[in-house]
Amino acid sequence: MDTNINAAVAALTSTFPNETSLNKDICAQHAHTTSHIPAQLPDAVLFAENTEQVAQAVTILAKHNCPIIAFGTGTSLEGHINAPMGGISIDLSRMNNILAVNQEDMDVVVQPGVTRVHLNQHLRDTGLFFPIDPGADASIGGMAATRASGTNAVRYGTMREAVMALEVVLPNGAIMRTGGRARKSAAGYDLTNLFVGSEGTLGIITELTLRVHGIPNHISGGICSFPTITKACEAVIETIQMGIRVARIELLDALQVKACNLYSKSSLPERPLLLLEFHGNEQSVEEDRRSFQEIAEDHGGTAFQWSIDAEERNKLWKVRHDAFWAASSLIPDASIFTTDVCVPISRLAECVDATQRDIAESQLISPIVGHVGDGNFHCLILMPNDKPDMEERIEAFCQRLSQRALDMGGTCTGEHGIGQGKRNFLAIEAQSALPIMQAIKMQLDPQNIMNPGKIFLDDNS
Amino acid sequence: MDTNINAAVAALTSTFPNETSLNKDICAQHAHTTSHIPAQLPDAVLFAENTEQVAQAVTILAKHNCPIIAFGTGTSLEGHINAPMGGISIDLSRMNNILAVNQEDMDVVVQPGVTRVHLNQHLRDTGLFFPIDPGADASIGGMAATRASGTNAVRYGTMREAVMALEVVLPNGAIMRTGGRARKSAAGYDLTNLFVGSEGTLGIITELTLRVHGIPNHISGGICSFPTITKACEAVIETIQMGIRVARIELLDALQVKACNLYSKSSLPERPLLLLEFHGNEQSVEEDRRSFQEIAEDHGGTAFQWSIDAEERNKLWKVRHDAFWAASSLIPDASIFTTDVCVPISRLAECVDATQRDIAESQLISPIVGHVGDGNFHCLILMPNDKPDMEERIEAFCQRLSQRALDMGGTCTGEHGIGQGKRNFLAIEAQSALPIMQAIKMQLDPQNIMNPGKIFLDDNS
Repeated sequence: MDTNINAAVAALTSTFPNETSLNKDICAQHAHTTSHIPAQLPDAVLFAENTEQVAQAVTILAKHNCPIIAFGTGTSLEGHINAPMGGISIDLSRMNNILAVNQEDMDVVVQPGVTRVHLNQHLRDTGLFFPIDPGADASIGGMAATRASGTNAVRYGTMREAVMALEVVLPNGAIMRTGGRARKSAAGYDLTNLFVGSEGTLGIITELTLRVHGIPNHISGGICSFPTITKACEAVIETIQMGIRVARIELLDALQVKACNLYSKSSLPERPLLLLEFHGNEQSVEEDRRSFQEIAEDHGGTAFQWSIDAEERNKLWKVRHDAFWAASSLIPDASIFTTDVCVPISRLAECVDATQRDIAESQLISPIVGHVGDGNFHCLILMPNDKPDMEERIEAFCQRLSQRALDMGGTCTGEHGIGQGKRNFLAIEAQSALPIMQAIKMQLDPQNIMNPGKIFLDDNS
Repeated sequence: MDTNINAAVAALTSTFPNETSLNKDICAQHAHTTSHIPAQLPDAVLFAENTEQVAQAVTILAKHNCPIIAFGTGTSLEGHINAPMGGISIDLSRMNNILAVNQEDMDVVVQPGVTRVHLNQHLRDTGLFFPIDPGADASIGGMAATRASGTNAVRYGTMREAVMALEVVLPNGAIMRTGGRARKSAAGYDLTNLFVGSEGTLGIITELTLRVHGIPNHISGGICSFPTITKACEAVIETIQMGIRVARIELLDALQVKACNLYSKSSLPERPLLLLEFHGNEQSVEEDRRSFQEIAEDHGGTAFQWSIDAEERNKLWKVRHDAFWAASSLIPDASIFTTDVCVPISRLAECVDATQRDIAESQLISPIVGHVGDGNFHCLILMPNDKPDMEERIEAFCQRLSQRALDMGGTCTGEHGIGQGKRNFLAIEAQSALPIMQAIKMQLDPQNIMNPGKIFLDDNS
């Protein structure tokens, strides 16, 4: 069957006249904007109100072989929401109800358009919180689709650990439920984890059951500076190996600290910096903090500043969360190429060090920032818009970075996902597994209408 | 293509003359023996020495459409290793090498025939341990295949959390690698978790990378008795909800305690009993223990006994691990029907209470024992061999038990898996997901040679 997008748009508009938009600005808002990957607009946007509408829309669009791209908040970084073959963006932001808070079982049921900040505001009075924090106020559906993680993952895990159950609209319009609310199950294939991280290529997530956690009695946060980035990484490695239960341990290199100071008007010492947070009771937090400080001092750590004051801590984490915007504003009129890799913790110092040298040798400008407790770090590579010839050099650098991570037993992406940007790296990393991923994709979505041109290289996009 | 088992056996014997056995006793040892499910023998057993042999054998057997059943230690409980359509049992017990201990990253790489006790003995001097403990000294490959968990899961998770990467021989004989050694990855579909819990129906696991943990500085274990099973469950619920970090919290009902006393010559108080263990440093363990004791006392807990002595604790856990054998010996000459369900923790007391009443009303003899911190419990139903007419009543009881768990938002199996025994329950529990599980099975194993007759009902077995 041939793709007929015009017919698909007409059918969609006639079924959902109030929910469908063909407005070019709206379409542009639904294509990719936060990275260097050029935007590729969908032909129309459907603002879905409920699961039944999503199912009905998918059924209609499947008839016309029309590409379907699920949209949450548009904060992903690898071109996940682009429409390289055109098609319909299904915007799930109106599906933003929190359907259940099961306080006694520490789980919640939410629609995919709920954002993580919204969820945490809602939970505040229950003593519970949802820890996964990728920085941006992303939608929970999008976070599941990209297997997001972020600053708290070192202690609380990623979306892989957080998602207990899903409702998904499949490529044929059928509604499927996976998983459940029991803490564990051995009942059949783990389809929940198959859909978590599938980047909208197997179906559209329309409901999620999430594990949440008790807000810790006591939180202490702080910073510590290091003479070199290697020393900072060595302190991280030892902290993790000693089993000190950090809730967050984030690295900013000197350039990133400088960018943050400029952007956030902060006055952090402009040297390699670790930002930390400990969760627990007063005693354990104090013990953890002290153990960390000893390790840090062994590695030349100085300028410790600690605070249990929530406002001060929030200010610090706001600076951290704005690191992306701070980096992008280092050079006016520049594009930002953001990439992430993740390596076994023992190789972290070596990998970051080699990467920093590579940045210098390649004459690139790129702050490094990372969720280093997981062995995960990001390069935020800047390309002045008057130097488009840098692109080739940047791509060669990214290639070397991914290969370096793979050579160390790591992965080409710890949390950003494959999207459009890393499809060639996945082909290297997954090699023997890729045919099976493709076989599953083919079986579930034989028309290749679900987010085509993502994850896999083989569709000429 | 027709199945030709004789030709398959001949081909296998000629390729692996020293590794193939047609001996009936050996075949019988490779069919199911630890539960009520009748044994169904394979036609031959291949004792595989390495991945290449497994791949070669699968390639040969696939040519003849011959069923293949992976075998570890034979300790599963739902008929997983039976050969309802005949075929070849591939015994992986000779593939028992520990290939790497990455102490600094807290992971290990093992062959599937390594057992959990063997692994922990090997790790002892490294300060690390592998926490997943289903009671039996199962093989790691089998534990992954059935998504095993056990007593430590409340703190350390199940095989879902433990397995980082796999090598798998696929139904076409190809060798696939999934996952990696990084603590997290967003690179493509999570095939690792698709194979964990797939019960040998998608391929044969030939290598595993596992997360391991630091041996806690301090361990305290103990017991506490309760006036009723409901009170015991209420204490568990509150313990979990308060966030007390129990490493183990196990329930034995009065009948199970009696069985254990008889079998293990112990003298535990013959009332509903919780067995606990706390891991941490001296201070935190003492704090946790005290918090638990307060909760327990609120629910009528008495007869507390605590010990930090390793030998005493080991004795206690030996009693717990022998619960299955203790229960089976309650009546001489009886078959044991063992089943497990798992419910959200808030429904635990209600579910256990209703189940105990159902046991009494159904005039069954069935100790209850459970990993209750996860909301997971087992019934060990005894059927005297001179009363085979009880079987129908037992099956009706199991049906009600699963339905009760499902009605409470739980699952028909927390850790035993589906195998042959729970296929009809999976059809109820997974409903909308079952067609997708079947589609994946069909796509990866179109000949249905990998452990046929397990998980799915539709193959006339």
